[in-house]
Amino acid sequence: MVKRVSLAGADCPVARALDVIGDWWSLLIIRDAFDGICRFSAFQANLGIAKGMLSARLKDLIEKDIFETVPASDGSAYREYVLTGKGRGLFLVIVALRQWGEDCLYGPDEAHSVLVDRRMGRPVDRLALRSETGAVLGWEATEVMKTG
Amino acid sequence: MVKRVSLAGADCPVARALDVIGDWWSLLIIRDAFDGICRFSAFQANLGIAKGMLSARLKDLIEKDIFETVPASDGSAYREYVLTGKGRGLFLVIVALRQWGEDCLYGPDEAHSVLVDRRMGRPVDRLALRSETGAVLGWEATEVMKTG
Repeated sequence: MVKRVSLAGADCPVARALDVIGDWWSLLIIRDAFDGICRFSAFQANLGIAKGMLSARLKDLIEKDIFETVPASDGSAYREYVLTGKGRGLFLVIVALRQWGEDCLYGPDEAHSVLVDRRMGRPVDRLALRSETGAVLGWEATEVMKTG
Repeated sequence: MVKRVSLAGADCPVARALDVIGDWWSLLIIRDAFDGICRFSAFQANLGIAKGMLSARLKDLIEKDIFETVPASDGSAYREYVLTGKGRGLFLVIVALRQWGEDCLYGPDEAHSVLVDRRMGRPVDRLALRSETGAVLGWEATEVMKTG
């Protein structure tokens, strides 16, 4: 990975978040984990990533408390990589990326995977940002209040 | 930028989205634009990024229809960099990163900037994923239906 300036101490939560998971591979690994992938070989096969690179990314994500390893659910000697609570907290980041991709990056006749409500089998609703009174807010209706 | 495999043709919208904006600097530049920054020098000062790198990122983001340049709003000879409609569509990605950062990356007494409803001056609500009937869905209540 290219060494870069750290934003771990930033007062902007977006900058801190990107400091932890702002890597293309890391977010794809996290996406795969939400899809149920938990074995090293399965991540590798699905992502087409070099073993060394996957290993480095998983090690980094474990150090950052995004993933943890647990004994394999089938009782075999394998270790499985599962998201921690902190890692599962990234679900809406993945969903927001997905919905933007669906909106902007597919042609009208082009197929893509769909996120569905497991119980109903129906596509999920669109994410929306709301005020504390429930009004939907576009970006122009918001502003960032800086600290200090 | 490190050359990497392209996921532009992926059937997963998350992968396509990351192919376009899955770069740490790109997302910080987009965040700054939502905060009202539009001049090259202001991006540079706020991000502490080298001129050449900022220039390359902005060029790439213009090619990808995330930014466009417009004449300066003050009538000067400067060009301003503003988000296109496609770029503004990334707002909820930035908000999701922010809310995760707020949840997981700050100590209890540590200050951070806050996203507020501009009209009321009150913090925005939390993003939530809902089913088409309005039920809040956690990640475990969803699944991805693949194409083909």
